[in-house]
Amino acid sequence: MYPKSIQKLIDLFSRFPTVGPRTAARFVFYLIKLPQAELEELSSSLKELKENIKICSWCFNSFDSPSNSGQASSGQAGSREICPICEDKTRDKSLLCIIEKETDLTTIEKTKKYKGLYFILGGTINLKKRDKKDIRIEQLKERVKDNGFEEVIIAINPTTEGEITRLLIERELKPFNIKITHLGRGLPMGGELEYADSDTLSSSFDSRR
Amino acid sequence: MYPKSIQKLIDLFSRFPTVGPRTAARFVFYLIKLPQAELEELSSSLKELKENIKICSWCFNSFDSPSNSGQASSGQAGSREICPICEDKTRDKSLLCIIEKETDLTTIEKTKKYKGLYFILGGTINLKKRDKKDIRIEQLKERVKDNGFEEVIIAINPTTEGEITRLLIERELKPFNIKITHLGRGLPMGGELEYADSDTLSSSFDSRR
Amino acid sequence: MYPKSIQKLIDLFSRFPTVGPRTAARFVFYLIKLPQAELEELSSSLKELKENIKICSWCFNSFDSPSNSGQASSGQAGSREICPICEDKTRDKSLLCIIEKETDLTTIEKTKKYKGLYFILGGTINLKKRDKKDIRIEQLKERVKDNGFEEVIIAINPTTEGEITRLLIERELKPFNIKITHLGRGLPMGGELEYADSDTLSSSFDSRR
Amino acid sequence: MYPKSIQKLIDLFSRFPTVGPRTAARFVFYLIKLPQAELEELSSSLKELKENIKICSWCFNSFDSPSNSGQASSGQAGSREICPICEDKTRDKSLLCIIEKETDLTTIEKTKKYKGLYFILGGTINLKKRDKKDIRIEQLKERVKDNGFEEVIIAINPTTEGEITRLLIERELKPFNIKITHLGRGLPMGGELEYADSDTLSSSFDSRR
Repeated sequence: MYPKSIQKLIDLFSRFPTVGPRTAARFVFYLIKLPQAELEELSSSLKELKENIKICSWCFNSFDSPSNSGQASSGQAGSREICPICEDKTRDKSLLCIIEKETDLTTIEKTKKYKGLYFILGGTINLKKRDKKDIRIEQLKERVKDNGFEEVIIAINPTTEGEITRLLIERELKPFNIKITHLGRGLPMGGELEYADSDTLSSSFDSRR
Repeated sequence: MYPKSIQKLIDLFSRFPTVGPRTAARFVFYLIKLPQAELEELSSSLKELKENIKICSWCFNSFDSPSNSGQASSGQAGSREICPICEDKTRDKSLLCIIEKETDLTTIEKTKKYKGLYFILGGTINLKKRDKKDIRIEQLKERVKDNGFEEVIIAINPTTEGEITRLLIERELKPFNIKITHLGRGLPMGGELEYADSDTLSSSFDSRR
Repeated sequence: MYPKSIQKLIDLFSRFPTVGPRTAARFVFYLIKLPQAELEELSSSLKELKENIKICSWCFNSFDSPSNSGQASSGQAGSREICPICEDKTRDKSLLCIIEKETDLTTIEKTKKYKGLYFILGGTINLKKRDKKDIRIEQLKERVKDNGFEEVIIAINPTTEGEITRLLIERELKPFNIKITHLGRGLPMGGELEYADSDTLSSSFDSRR
Repeated sequence: MYPKSIQKLIDLFSRFPTVGPRTAARFVFYLIKLPQAELEELSSSLKELKENIKICSWCFNSFDSPSNSGQASSGQAGSREICPICEDKTRDKSLLCIIEKETDLTTIEKTKKYKGLYFILGGTINLKKRDKKDIRIEQLKERVKDNGFEEVIIAINPTTEGEITRLLIERELKPFNIKITHLGRGLPMGGELEYADSDTLSSSFDSRR
C-alpha cells in the first residue's frame, strides 16, 4: 500500500528490536520530513559503524577503533585488539564480572562501584533450546583458567533464563576452584515488601546493614 | 560512556518518535551484530529515500518517484507531480477526505470503503500554540474552491486536538457552501458500553442499523 | 497466617469480581480501622439489600421495593412487580432496547438519548459453553411476541461474545417480523484511525454526518 | 440513577481502597445475585469483625480475641492484650523489626526468615504533611527504651516516603545507642540490571555472595 521505497524501509525498521510495522511507518514518515543532510549523516553513520568499532578480543566489549582516532598502525593483521578497560592499568585484575551484554557494562560502570575486569557472555541460555553454544562459555573458561582471578562475580539478570545461565556458569567454572559470587537480591529502590517474593525478601534480611 | 561512533548513532536514533536513549542503544547493538551488507542496504535506503519519493503537489501524499520507476522525463523543472490516487480516473472526484497524515490514508485505503480523493493536512492544531500555520488550511481552501466537490469528509481523529482542528476546518470551509461531514462516532469493535462516554453512546443510537 | 476472623472476611471478599486475596486483605484492614457504627451500617445494608430491592418481572431491572418506600400493600401475594421505567407512561412503548446487565441500563439512561423500554438479558453467550439457557432468550421472545414493538435495538457490547449473542437474538426474533437494529460502530471519542479495525472505520464512513 | 438501597451500598464500597464507583456497582450487582444466606454471612462477619479481633497493646498487630476462642476471662477491664507473636517464648527477644502495616508482617512471616519481634508503625510520613503524629514514633521509642534489644531492623518500603520515615526513625532512636539496620537493596527476582538505579545496583555488588 505504501510506495515501495517507503515499504522497504518499513520492512528494514520492523526487524529492529521492539519495533513493529506501525512504529516502523512512523519512523519513515519522520525521516521523510528531515533535511537531506540529516538523512545523510544517519546513512553514513550506519555505513561506517562497523569500521569505526572494534570488538575487544579479550572481553568482547565494543570500543572505538584506534584508526578512527587517527592511529594508523592498529589495523595490522595479527594485532590483538584490546579495549580501554582491559588495557587500563588501574583496574583491579583480580576481579572478573560476567555480564550478558554491552549495555549492562555501561550500566555497571555508571555506578562507579566496580573496578575489575568484565567478560561479555553474549546472551543467556535460551530456555527452549538450552544450547550453550550461543554464549561464550568456552572463551570464559579460557579467561578464568589463564588469569588467576580471586573472584568471579556473575552479574546476570536474576530472571529465569538468567538464573539457569548462572547455574551453568557455576558448574562450568567449578573445576577452577575460584571464589564465585553473584549479585545480592533485595528490594529495589521504590519497591514494596508486599510485592516481593520470599527469596528476595529473605535476601534483604540477610544483607541488611 | 559508549564509544563515540556508537554514542552518535544512539543520539540520532533518540530523536526518532517514541525512541528513548535505552531503546536507541538496543538499536545500535542490534545493528553492530548485522552483516555489513545489511547495514549498507539500510544506509543506502536512507540516503536515497527522498530521491525516490515525491510528495504529491495536490494532496501531499508520498509516492514513488517516476524516475525511480525508470521514467526519465518527470524530473523536469516545472512539471507538477501528482500521485497515483489523484491521477486515477476511476476515483470519485466529487468526494474529498481530509486526513491528518500519510498513515491514515493507508489505514482508510485498506478498508476499501472510500473511493474519493484525499487531502493530507499535515497535522492538527497544537493546543498550546493554536497556530493554524502548521497545517495546510490555505492549500485546503484552494483545493475546495477550485474543484466543485459535492462533499468534504473530515476524517481527523476524534481527540481533543482533532476536534478543535475539525471545528476550524468547518469554519474555514463554510463560505464555500459545500456539504461537510465527519466520521460517525460509535462503539468500536471490542468496545464496551460501560466505558463509552455519553456522546459516543448517543451517536451509536443515532447510527444504529 | 491471619487471625481467623480476618481470614474469613478475606475469603469472602476474594469472591467479589476483580478482587484477589491481596486486595481483599487491604479491604479488611481498612474495615478494622473504621468506627463500629460504619461497620454496622455496611453490615445492615448488606443484610437488607435483597429485602429492599425488587427485580422487575417484565424487564428484570432492579428497583427499590415499594415497601421500602413506606407503601404497605405491594407485598401482597400475586402482585406483579413492575419497575418505574416499565410503568412510566411517558416512555415510548414502541421501542425495546436489549441490554446485557443492569449497569448498561444506567449508562444508557445517563445519555438521555433513549426513551423506550429495556430488557435485561442477564449475560452473553459463553463462548466455551455456548449455552443459551444462561440468558433470558425465552422471556425475551415472549415480550416481543406480546407487545407489538416497532423496533428492537440490540445494545450488547460489540465484543466477540456480544456479537455471537446478537446473532443468536437476531435469529430467534426473526419469526416475529420486526425491525431489529444494533448500535452503530465507529471511532469513540478520543479514538484514533490508526488503531481502528477495518469494520469500525468502514462503519464510521457509513454513519458520517 | 440506581435504586437508593443499591446506591447506598455503591457509596459505601466506593470508600474502600482501590475501589471506584464502577467497581462498587459491580460488587453490588454481584451481591444481589448471591443467596440470602451468603449475604448474611458477610453481614455478620462485618458486624462482629471488631469484637473478634484484638489489637496487640505491645506491637499493634491484630489477633483473634481470646473470648472469640472460648476463653472467658480475658475481656476483663485492665488486662493487657498481647498477640501470640509477642507472647511466643521461642521468638528472639533481642531483635525488633519495624514495619509499616499488618500485611507486611504476614509477608515477612511467610519467608520464615525472621524470628524476632515486630512493631507496626501504622504508616509512613506523609510527604505533604510531614507530620509524625500519624505514626507511632513515641510508642516505638518506649518499646526500644524498655526492652534491651540488640538490633532494630527497619523493614519499611524503600520508596520515597518510606526512606524519609526510615531517616526519621534512625534519628529518633539514635539516643538509645542501639544497632539500627535496614533491609538490603538489590535486584529482585525477575529484575534486570538495565532498569536498576545506581544505588540498587551498587548495593547488589556490596551484598554479593
